[in-house]
Amino acid sequence: MYCRPVIDPGTKPPASPAGPPIDWATLRAAATAAAARAYAPYSHVHVGAAGLSAAGDLVEGSNVENASYGLTLCAECGLVSDLARHGGGRLVAVSIVAGDGDPVAPCGRCRQLLFEHGGAELLVDDGTPAPARRLADLLPEAFGPTDLVTRRS
Amino acid sequence: MYCRPVIDPGTKPPASPAGPPIDWATLRAAATAAAARAYAPYSHVHVGAAGLSAAGDLVEGSNVENASYGLTLCAECGLVSDLARHGGGRLVAVSIVAGDGDPVAPCGRCRQLLFEHGGAELLVDDGTPAPARRLADLLPEAFGPTDLVTRRS
Amino acid sequence: MYCRPVIDPGTKPPASPAGPPIDWATLRAAATAAAARAYAPYSHVHVGAAGLSAAGDLVEGSNVENASYGLTLCAECGLVSDLARHGGGRLVAVSIVAGDGDPVAPCGRCRQLLFEHGGAELLVDDGTPAPARRLADLLPEAFGPTDLVTRRS
Amino acid sequence: MYCRPVIDPGTKPPASPAGPPIDWATLRAAATAAAARAYAPYSHVHVGAAGLSAAGDLVEGSNVENASYGLTLCAECGLVSDLARHGGGRLVAVSIVAGDGDPVAPCGRCRQLLFEHGGAELLVDDGTPAPARRLADLLPEAFGPTDLVTRRS
Repeated sequence: MYCRPVIDPGTKPPASPAGPPIDWATLRAAATAAAARAYAPYSHVHVGAAGLSAAGDLVEGSNVENASYGLTLCAECGLVSDLARHGGGRLVAVSIVAGDGDPVAPCGRCRQLLFEHGGAELLVDDGTPAPARRLADLLPEAFGPTDLVTRRS
Repeated sequence: MYCRPVIDPGTKPPASPAGPPIDWATLRAAATAAAARAYAPYSHVHVGAAGLSAAGDLVEGSNVENASYGLTLCAECGLVSDLARHGGGRLVAVSIVAGDGDPVAPCGRCRQLLFEHGGAELLVDDGTPAPARRLADLLPEAFGPTDLVTRRS
Repeated sequence: MYCRPVIDPGTKPPASPAGPPIDWATLRAAATAAAARAYAPYSHVHVGAAGLSAAGDLVEGSNVENASYGLTLCAECGLVSDLARHGGGRLVAVSIVAGDGDPVAPCGRCRQLLFEHGGAELLVDDGTPAPARRLADLLPEAFGPTDLVTRRS
Repeated sequence: MYCRPVIDPGTKPPASPAGPPIDWATLRAAATAAAARAYAPYSHVHVGAAGLSAAGDLVEGSNVENASYGLTLCAECGLVSDLARHGGGRLVAVSIVAGDGDPVAPCGRCRQLLFEHGGAELLVDDGTPAPARRLADLLPEAFGPTDLVTRRS
């Protein structure tokens, strides 16, 4: 057990338990459409992501690769940038889909990005019928904003 | 001189010389507005970026920081993600502005991101009256998509 | 359940079950020493990482921050770079420690980096007595090299 | 001209003008050897980097790719991590070489990483006889640590 009293819910206030209704079919369709706009000339893995914010905004992103591979932006990078474009706030649900139309597991970086904006209770489409996976199950014991404060030296 | 016959214009076809007219005042205003939407709780440096594509789209982004500092997305990351959202294409001009309303130099990563989508002739607002800086002057002798092909082993 | 038949063990062959003996005290001491060499002028969170490879090499890294926050390298980035310096191979155990001497949870990016070089069975020091946490428990349902092949389109 | 009075030499004190003698042949040979240790199963572009610190240390790195392309570490990432391992300090010269044995241009991210640790006067092997390229010529008008202080809002 890492030295932290509670699981860090992220730096933003958590979404109200009574958030907007989650329409998974719409989210997955939006993610699929976003995958079709990916710029992936190097890996040929096209990924799209769509999310619902606590304010009810639909936000989305596509992966954008780079000749310097390490500068590649995943679809979830675009999604959190789009969240900022909508004025920010808290994510409550996301669907991430590859070009084949099926959900794809977010990479570790993107779990961390989602944690910053959705916290442990963010719901992630895992391809099964609802209820979807909690982010806490995909990134347990997450490093988070609280660590920045408590682990300084 | 690095071993490359020509400056790599990026992996996408270059924008036509007769692209859309560039309204720098509009770009800078959009970048300034984007800076106000930045999520920068750690550095407190708010940055916004706005760009014009060859198709005439206005695209934009804000920086989005993360408790794990290395996962921070600069405003230009959001901008190229927004370009994908608009269906992609070529960037012809960008303005990057800090929260104080003045242009700010893009970091090295972002010069590389811009190179992928705008190439050497992309114009970058440097705070002076037009003509703005060419990206070739901010990232000379760029590593680019051609290197991926010619430098394999 | 994401569309993948088995948990991906990473792109390298897994370490033999009969790997080198793991001396956690040595690993944690090496990580603590590495934390003291961190370059963290922005967050003031100093982190060190130490790992044991299947070949018996001790590898290590410190976090290295950057004025452009998103270019920050975590301690685990340094660790996998050091693994390459030692000729590569498979990680079997890692300890990650903050400047206060206690283990710290790896961020999502670093779980993914560790997955590439250690796979699901990599052991991660979580501050408890042995046995340590398996990486599969910190990054379940990981995106991995197999996805690059099976999710192309 | 971006709003900054002087070119930022980076956050560390600049190396003394009378630094250690630079043996470019040794640096390039070390970079070539490092390229042979790259982990580049996805791009097949093997890169090695070697640098000389003001203290006279030889530091090095190899690129380390990842199935999640955006988590790829360039050779220069490994180099600055190795600098930390040696106790840090200032870089005075670097050579970056691809698997074909010839110098390769650093990507934008890596120019920024080098700037943090070497500043504008860092010398970069560009494949020509000495004197090598100054980093100021590869990353002019760099964003740097001073911007973090002066551009807050």
